[in-house]
Amino acid sequence: MSKSAGCCQKCVEYLFYYETPKTLVIPNIGVGCVFRFTQLLVVITLLSVTTKVKGFAFTNTSDMDPRFWDVADYVIPPQGDRSFFVLTNMVVTPKQSQSRCPEFPSQSTTCVDDCDCIEGHSDPRGSGIQTGLCVNYSSTVQTCEVLSWCPLEIDTMLPEHALLATAENFTVLIKNSVTYPKFNFHGRNILPHINSSYLKRCEFNRATDPDCPIFRLKHIVSEAGEDFQDMAVKGGILGIIIDWSCDLDWWAGKCYPKYSFRRLDNKNPVNNVAPGYNFRFAKYYKTADGEETRTLIKAYGIRFDVIVFGTAGKFGIVPTIVNLGAALSFLSLVPVVTDWFMLTCMRKRDLYNKQKVSSLSEDSESMSMGTTYGTQ
Amino acid sequence: MSKSAGCCQKCVEYLFYYETPKTLVIPNIGVGCVFRFTQLLVVITLLSVTTKVKGFAFTNTSDMDPRFWDVADYVIPPQGDRSFFVLTNMVVTPKQSQSRCPEFPSQSTTCVDDCDCIEGHSDPRGSGIQTGLCVNYSSTVQTCEVLSWCPLEIDTMLPEHALLATAENFTVLIKNSVTYPKFNFHGRNILPHINSSYLKRCEFNRATDPDCPIFRLKHIVSEAGEDFQDMAVKGGILGIIIDWSCDLDWWAGKCYPKYSFRRLDNKNPVNNVAPGYNFRFAKYYKTADGEETRTLIKAYGIRFDVIVFGTAGKFGIVPTIVNLGAALSFLSLVPVVTDWFMLTCMRKRDLYNKQKVSSLSEDSESMSMGTTYGTQ
Amino acid sequence: MSKSAGCCQKCVEYLFYYETPKTLVIPNIGVGCVFRFTQLLVVITLLSVTTKVKGFAFTNTSDMDPRFWDVADYVIPPQGDRSFFVLTNMVVTPKQSQSRCPEFPSQSTTCVDDCDCIEGHSDPRGSGIQTGLCVNYSSTVQTCEVLSWCPLEIDTMLPEHALLATAENFTVLIKNSVTYPKFNFHGRNILPHINSSYLKRCEFNRATDPDCPIFRLKHIVSEAGEDFQDMAVKGGILGIIIDWSCDLDWWAGKCYPKYSFRRLDNKNPVNNVAPGYNFRFAKYYKTADGEETRTLIKAYGIRFDVIVFGTAGKFGIVPTIVNLGAALSFLSLVPVVTDWFMLTCMRKRDLYNKQKVSSLSEDSESMSMGTTYGTQ
Repeated sequence: MSKSAGCCQKCVEYLFYYETPKTLVIPNIGVGCVFRFTQLLVVITLLSVTTKVKGFAFTNTSDMDPRFWDVADYVIPPQGDRSFFVLTNMVVTPKQSQSRCPEFPSQSTTCVDDCDCIEGHSDPRGSGIQTGLCVNYSSTVQTCEVLSWCPLEIDTMLPEHALLATAENFTVLIKNSVTYPKFNFHGRNILPHINSSYLKRCEFNRATDPDCPIFRLKHIVSEAGEDFQDMAVKGGILGIIIDWSCDLDWWAGKCYPKYSFRRLDNKNPVNNVAPGYNFRFAKYYKTADGEETRTLIKAYGIRFDVIVFGTAGKFGIVPTIVNLGAALSFLSLVPVVTDWFMLTCMRKRDLYNKQKVSSLSEDSESMSMGTTYGTQ
Repeated sequence: MSKSAGCCQKCVEYLFYYETPKTLVIPNIGVGCVFRFTQLLVVITLLSVTTKVKGFAFTNTSDMDPRFWDVADYVIPPQGDRSFFVLTNMVVTPKQSQSRCPEFPSQSTTCVDDCDCIEGHSDPRGSGIQTGLCVNYSSTVQTCEVLSWCPLEIDTMLPEHALLATAENFTVLIKNSVTYPKFNFHGRNILPHINSSYLKRCEFNRATDPDCPIFRLKHIVSEAGEDFQDMAVKGGILGIIIDWSCDLDWWAGKCYPKYSFRRLDNKNPVNNVAPGYNFRFAKYYKTADGEETRTLIKAYGIRFDVIVFGTAGKFGIVPTIVNLGAALSFLSLVPVVTDWFMLTCMRKRDLYNKQKVSSLSEDSESMSMGTTYGTQ
Repeated sequence: MSKSAGCCQKCVEYLFYYETPKTLVIPNIGVGCVFRFTQLLVVITLLSVTTKVKGFAFTNTSDMDPRFWDVADYVIPPQGDRSFFVLTNMVVTPKQSQSRCPEFPSQSTTCVDDCDCIEGHSDPRGSGIQTGLCVNYSSTVQTCEVLSWCPLEIDTMLPEHALLATAENFTVLIKNSVTYPKFNFHGRNILPHINSSYLKRCEFNRATDPDCPIFRLKHIVSEAGEDFQDMAVKGGILGIIIDWSCDLDWWAGKCYPKYSFRRLDNKNPVNNVAPGYNFRFAKYYKTADGEETRTLIKAYGIRFDVIVFGTAGKFGIVPTIVNLGAALSFLSLVPVVTDWFMLTCMRKRDLYNKQKVSSLSEDSESMSMGTTYGTQ
């Protein structure tokens, strides 16, 4: 009675602990976790980013008239959105109008007489729709005439040194707000301890002014490991990354943004079609007699993309439970592993095995056991 | 001593396994998981997308002068962003100026004399601010005069066949870079094994050229299950989805993007206000005498949105532990379930039940058990 | 034999339950969960948003000619994207041309003679590049002449009452589609039970018309707790949040979007550089003799950002398993905790402890136990 009964009682007691929670705990925590856990990971974040570029430039090259450039001229689009483009180099084709002109000479466009040109034909690699005429391109070469915006753009004449090289001294003010409605947190990259007079003269510098939201373009590019003048010729895309990942718990410190910079496009010249970043746009004019003309600009420059990351988190009790639970479940693995170790690797494995094997012929035994207990 | 003691020892041993990890493992894994697990799911991804449309068109309809169209004319906005619009149809109202003209006739705008028109009144469904005069709209109808950009736009005269129907043959080059700083992975949709000469002539085709980043607009639209010419009339929004979901483990293969296409707006004509996609913009001119005029364009077309997904993952050891742990915890459920089964469903359930019930009157027993052990 | 053997058999049986799942369950669920669980949380969502503003305004102030404004004039960019700007106030500088003019007087720009001005010098806070001449700014003040777009913009003369104050009555139609390809769910903010005639006259109102997708700008701003006329003077950024968080299970109800509104920029005048929201853009003209002129507009207004959230979820079986598993694993903690409680806090802890301590000298015992069993 005494020892073995006490032991068995212990076993029974042991079993009993498992039984109670089975019906009580599972429905509550299990179902609840599915919803609350998912909610916590997908935190709603409200962002606003505005950018404002400052600076002007003056160009005086042989290709173009002397010209003064300000923000309205070189920032495209002008809205000061989280992605803005600063024009640094360009091919300008002024005074284009809807008319006819000879194609550039190439294997498929040179011609001897009109029979070589098909009226209405448009070569995808050409510049317009063929009129069917073969005309003089120069004194020595004849090419098919096309209907197009003439004169045609000669985009191989891109200046080797960026026209707006002085754009490297432009500055950009980035205003960024972050709101986590769930945590009732609102943050700005203009920190509370910064006053307006400081903001008028400061400039971001990782060492001396890490909190100033005004960035010199040259500095941004060099922090990304690039050279502004190199990048300005053919253009490129530069990411300004603002990282708001913070722990919002009361015991954690203040939540400050961290800036980093990285070139996003591929600058590797190997296997790089159309390297850099450029696009064409036109300014449309009307002459006194109502004819539409345009200035076509193939714009090369640097697109700055402000990318805001926020993974603010509080020490949520639910994910803690889930993770803690998962960790604890390994404890239940311990006896399994130990048994396996005991039964396969230990010196006395035969004895243990025997014990296990013998217990499988339990039918009569457990019956008698049951009876025995019953008569206690 | 022998058998029962051995058995109890087994029990004790069993209990002992649980005890050790309790204090050692929980604080380490549990707390660590909360942070590392969350981090792993919210992987920072840096994207860059540029698009470049190529192609030109020629329109020659009764409504408009013959006109040649190139990229600078039909791509809006011109920047080659991840969302670009290709103009396919339009209602053009040229030579508008700030002046006065009769309203379109409707129940609320027709009038008999000036008393029917209220100076300064602006009907939200009208076209301008009423001047208070009742003027001839045609030889038979009189309507209130309005101050507006005149002549008014007649937007019911949308061409039934898209003006720029040939836009279906335009191509777009999409350059997309993806960077996962955490995994030190950088990918491009221009794959390393592709050379420049191939890129100059290739065109995306799921079967023959699945890696070519140049897409014919007609092909994109038809892959999305739509007809280009249908969509071109009223406009629409088409998603170009680039999926970078990859396993970045060393044992996994290369990480290549997969393209798919899907119409994003609702084309269902039932219950569809303002179907399709259109917007109004204007080109502003100044006449020789300084008066401002504009050409108003109601632009219909297809907006292409490049959507990049990246769920790259490595076989992280932490989420594996968490998930494995959760799975394993089910093992701890096994005895509970088995016991329940044993006690309720099995033939011998009465015996088992008896055993359990008897153990509930443990107070004196466990006491004596304790004593017995104590005197050992 | 009877009691103790039965008890031990129970123990063995108990152990045996653990062993079977070890090899069967772990590889299947564990590895599978890592992938399937991650997939489920990062659900691909395809969105499309288009916006269409309606309304017109008339301005007649002393600063400007009387002017009529429609959508093409005041919505920038015009594309009807998810972020659109409504012009409400402005500083217009017409007839600028590339020429020379005296700087605004300030400490650094006033001069006595040409020696005070350095040719080619460009002060970042100035308006252009100095020509080296000192010229009359007014009858009393002389300043350095600069090469710039002249006349210079005087941006301190911002109207105190927003020019386009009537913009508060403009309405915007927001069309939003959401697709979860994984769940084969497609939703629109124009709900199926809404008919076209209702949509032509309805206007969003949280109480009476919560499903109407047409919003009066004034209403949006006031729902965000702001005053339109206040905000219109200096500009700002307003978020229109559409929340599609739904449970997509069959037993859950329909999935409807919920609208909310929130100002995203910082309106706090304290510590606020360049408050509000403004940007500069220009319209370019050419005079009859080919000279380029422009109208520079410093545009103040409200940028509306449509932000769509979607955290649709189905009662996924895999996360349920993971979470349930984690919850259940706490059950395995129960005996550990109970034992600890039993051994440290209970009255009879000495007895229990003794039992534990005695079992540690198990070497010979378990050996004999093994033998005993072996000879059964």
